[in-house]
Amino acid sequence: MLEPSLDLYGRAFDEAENLLKDLVAKSRARYALIIDLKGFVLMHARALWAPVPPSLDSFATLVASNYSANRAIAQLFGEDGFQELVQQGNQVGTFIEGLGDQALPVTVYDDSANLGRIKFITRETAAEVRRLIDEHTGDAPAFSLGEGWSGEVDSLLDSLFGKRGDS
Amino acid sequence: MLEPSLDLYGRAFDEAENLLKDLVAKSRARYALIIDLKGFVLMHARALWAPVPPSLDSFATLVASNYSANRAIAQLFGEDGFQELVQQGNQVGTFIEGLGDQALPVTVYDDSANLGRIKFITRETAAEVRRLIDEHTGDAPAFSLGEGWSGEVDSLLDSLFGKRGDS
Repeated sequence: MLEPSLDLYGRAFDEAENLLKDLVAKSRARYALIIDLKGFVLMHARALWAPVPPSLDSFATLVASNYSANRAIAQLFGEDGFQELVQQGNQVGTFIEGLGDQALPVTVYDDSANLGRIKFITRETAAEVRRLIDEHTGDAPAFSLGEGWSGEVDSLLDSLFGKRGDS
Repeated sequence: MLEPSLDLYGRAFDEAENLLKDLVAKSRARYALIIDLKGFVLMHARALWAPVPPSLDSFATLVASNYSANRAIAQLFGEDGFQELVQQGNQVGTFIEGLGDQALPVTVYDDSANLGRIKFITRETAAEVRRLIDEHTGDAPAFSLGEGWSGEVDSLLDSLFGKRGDS
């Protein structure tokens, strides 16, 4: 099954989400996302004033596939990958920064923001999120089926196939 | 057959190539290319001091496919396409500017260049190349087989199948 390559849980997730909210507030960006290289949205924040965003899942998928193509271009020039990517449209732009091998912080802005500021704050946030990921990777809550599980499965199987021993 | 979507001939081609050479000299870029959206290199220039470039055909193919993905991202935000794209690596960066629907000027630079200057001069050059394309599209030299052609083909066919009338 295709699953996100990176998960933050509990307090670490809340902290990272707060960092994104701060980024949006401080930089006057429209949206800020952290996506993984498979194209999953790991977390996102939106400015109160920003229009309803397009499908963030589609956006993340396109950005992630685009990033892989970018890496191929960088490698032609002997680079590991590009550290930064700016896509500038008439009104909307995106700034993407490499966050190790796992995740990409993506900031979407319009002409009410200053690109220099967007870059600076996104980089700062990326460094903090990187720290969080390094500290908390492997924090996944232990998977436990709970005490009642075994009995419930027995009942379900019994109802489907008849009580064992009946046949 | 897959063919470049855009051709400049004769004097117009020379003029465009000179514009690229000027761009490289003025901006201290390593290489400057004009590629079409199918990934063909239409023309290119290289600074005297720049290292031998990687395969420009591969580069153009990657940039063109990347550009289409970029356009999809831009359209999510209601933009026609991104006007500018900056990919910044550790040492090498690329600046790509949209040139109408047909071609992309691509400038590859390293840390000996100033990005602001690269952008400014690439934009200027793009505008001049756009003018050339608009003026000279459809200038393809008339295709003519020459006077000797018919006789040569006759001889060739004769040597392959025997002189007609012999059989």
